[in-house]
Amino acid sequence: MTSPSHTLRTDVVIVGGGPAGMLLSHLLAADGVESIVVEARSQEYVGARVRAGILEHSSVELLRGAGLGERLDREGDEHRGIYLQWPDERHHLDFVDLTGRSVWVYGQTEVQKDLVSARSAAGQEVYYECADVALHEVESDRPAVTFTHEGRPVRIEARAVAGCDGSFGPSRGAVPDAVRSIWERVYPYSWLGILADVAPSTDELIYAWHPDGFAMHSMRSASVSRLYLQVPNGTPVEEWSDDRIWDALATRLGHGQDGWRLEPGPITEKSVLPMRSYVQTPMRHGSLFLAGDSAHIVPPTGAKGLNLAIADVALLAPALADLVRRDDRMLAEAYSDTALRRVWRCTHFSWWMTTMLHTSEDPFDAQLQLSQLRWVASSEAGRTGLAENYAGLPIGF
Amino acid sequence: MTSPSHTLRTDVVIVGGGPAGMLLSHLLAADGVESIVVEARSQEYVGARVRAGILEHSSVELLRGAGLGERLDREGDEHRGIYLQWPDERHHLDFVDLTGRSVWVYGQTEVQKDLVSARSAAGQEVYYECADVALHEVESDRPAVTFTHEGRPVRIEARAVAGCDGSFGPSRGAVPDAVRSIWERVYPYSWLGILADVAPSTDELIYAWHPDGFAMHSMRSASVSRLYLQVPNGTPVEEWSDDRIWDALATRLGHGQDGWRLEPGPITEKSVLPMRSYVQTPMRHGSLFLAGDSAHIVPPTGAKGLNLAIADVALLAPALADLVRRDDRMLAEAYSDTALRRVWRCTHFSWWMTTMLHTSEDPFDAQLQLSQLRWVASSEAGRTGLAENYAGLPIGF
Repeated sequence: MTSPSHTLRTDVVIVGGGPAGMLLSHLLAADGVESIVVEARSQEYVGARVRAGILEHSSVELLRGAGLGERLDREGDEHRGIYLQWPDERHHLDFVDLTGRSVWVYGQTEVQKDLVSARSAAGQEVYYECADVALHEVESDRPAVTFTHEGRPVRIEARAVAGCDGSFGPSRGAVPDAVRSIWERVYPYSWLGILADVAPSTDELIYAWHPDGFAMHSMRSASVSRLYLQVPNGTPVEEWSDDRIWDALATRLGHGQDGWRLEPGPITEKSVLPMRSYVQTPMRHGSLFLAGDSAHIVPPTGAKGLNLAIADVALLAPALADLVRRDDRMLAEAYSDTALRRVWRCTHFSWWMTTMLHTSEDPFDAQLQLSQLRWVASSEAGRTGLAENYAGLPIGF
Repeated sequence: MTSPSHTLRTDVVIVGGGPAGMLLSHLLAADGVESIVVEARSQEYVGARVRAGILEHSSVELLRGAGLGERLDREGDEHRGIYLQWPDERHHLDFVDLTGRSVWVYGQTEVQKDLVSARSAAGQEVYYECADVALHEVESDRPAVTFTHEGRPVRIEARAVAGCDGSFGPSRGAVPDAVRSIWERVYPYSWLGILADVAPSTDELIYAWHPDGFAMHSMRSASVSRLYLQVPNGTPVEEWSDDRIWDALATRLGHGQDGWRLEPGPITEKSVLPMRSYVQTPMRHGSLFLAGDSAHIVPPTGAKGLNLAIADVALLAPALADLVRRDDRMLAEAYSDTALRRVWRCTHFSWWMTTMLHTSEDPFDAQLQLSQLRWVASSEAGRTGLAENYAGLPIGF
């Protein structure tokens, strides 16, 4: 026997309690707008997902402006740029010199922790482990979200629904097929990613083109390194022993070149990540607003996923505040077009970085990639183009 | 009965009497090096081939420096840049502002005329309509070229052979398969090109992205326009009546937009050009040196074909002069690597312009293209990157 249904009312129901949803609830609260967050997973699960680790300049500014920058400033690492390399050559691209903007290494798990503790301190209502989450009447001005929580059916009615629930949540599918357009590209390679308990062997991230495939050296802290190898799609993680991983990383990252050494260490996590580009338009349908991964997925090469979610939310919060508090629909109606300008810019940039750095079967591609890498590294315009996209455009672009 | 063989000696045999071969003979003569040019076609045929029409900055400088700039300066048209457009937007990219370099509209047929008359005035030996041209002993220091001319077998012995005979000549094949590498890409579209007796409707070249396909408005003179339409490979020219061509050009080039008008006129030539990228390495094998289309083909979108041939020859002439006059092999041995740096740069740029502007079957491509076009037009780095590649790198890059 089911318990009797429980109905709640709020200004905005936020579907998804990851960084996009939690940041939205935070920004809305600062603007006097009430929200309830509905999350299918447990708080621990959401908090532990290792994802992006790079915050672009405008993301850092936004988090600071929202009062979320304290630990970031204390524990995060500001980086001036990246290394771009191919066999026998490593070039430093200094984003600060090129564009006046830096990036920060501060993991998505850390951003999530800061958001959860800020929202918890403010008494934000968050429902975790919700089953059968469904969206209703999103085309009306009184949409609702229903779900089952601790065995009890719950219904939340609101003025708007924010779909911050990623690729697998119900929000993107709540836009009817007759309305939505989907663009998608699946890449013919994946990333084998590891976390290792060893100090990074580099001061800046290294993006390496190599005939064996792309490799990347990133970091989480002074004692934790994050590294990636291009592998074929469908690669079972068991095929890659720790030794094989470190050998491949040493080769592709150029261990021994100009005296540079890759220091191996104990691997604490190992996983294979497929790569794709996905964009769903429009990002608003009636009273439903999509933000972050529910509307778009980028391959990780340009470090854009989390930053794009933050940029969406930065546009969405004032749009929803105007809608809820003053019934002013102007920003809400502009939201999809405004957000999509940046989405397509970052979708293109992520595709460009990905296809420039990952080897393919076609030897002509390798020559195009090397020629492009040489040009990017040697031309002021080439370096600046990469830097301004990587360090990120201003919010609202 | 064959006539008795006729044997000649010279410093350099130049296979191919197009712009690359004729310019090489001109530059060698200025350096006191004797050459003989061997061409399979008639002088009229070579002189009438309508090809490229854009000279980049360094090509113009080189032609002027070689005493070939008089008519170019008088009859050619200096252009500050190009228009880049997509539906509802046309952007002027000013190369002079962006890079300090301009380009010139001066047809390949005009360059060829200037070269032929300069070489003819200087008494250059040129054999036209040579049959069965063959290269011999190119791995030795005494290579030879044989052919049949006016029914008589001719043999020319020399210190070096310059292969300036394009895709269909025998030079590229004289490099053994065990030695050469070939990179090739065939694009899934062609250009329908027309010449029309009508004043250009634009002051600068227009490169237009359109959902129906790429279109381009170029010009030959104040009264002759050259225009192109992207068409599927294998399109029979008969499928395109003059009316259909002008209608498609008007649509794709934006007739009526912001009051701009495309003026049609009598079409005097119509042809379909396939598009491909091709690079053969190395560009030197023993005493055989490849220059221009014999070593590399680019799609025409970046206007690089003729300019790349001129850049090759600018490197090759001093290398051959050192080799022939002082037995100094340094530049000759560096020629292939030095030339290939620019070849790959231009191969990449031509591929980039081509794939940015030509529509494909995949709707995701269209969004990537539009996002890239918007970025190129709106970012100083994006504009400069296109401009520095289009207006051309310094000779010797």
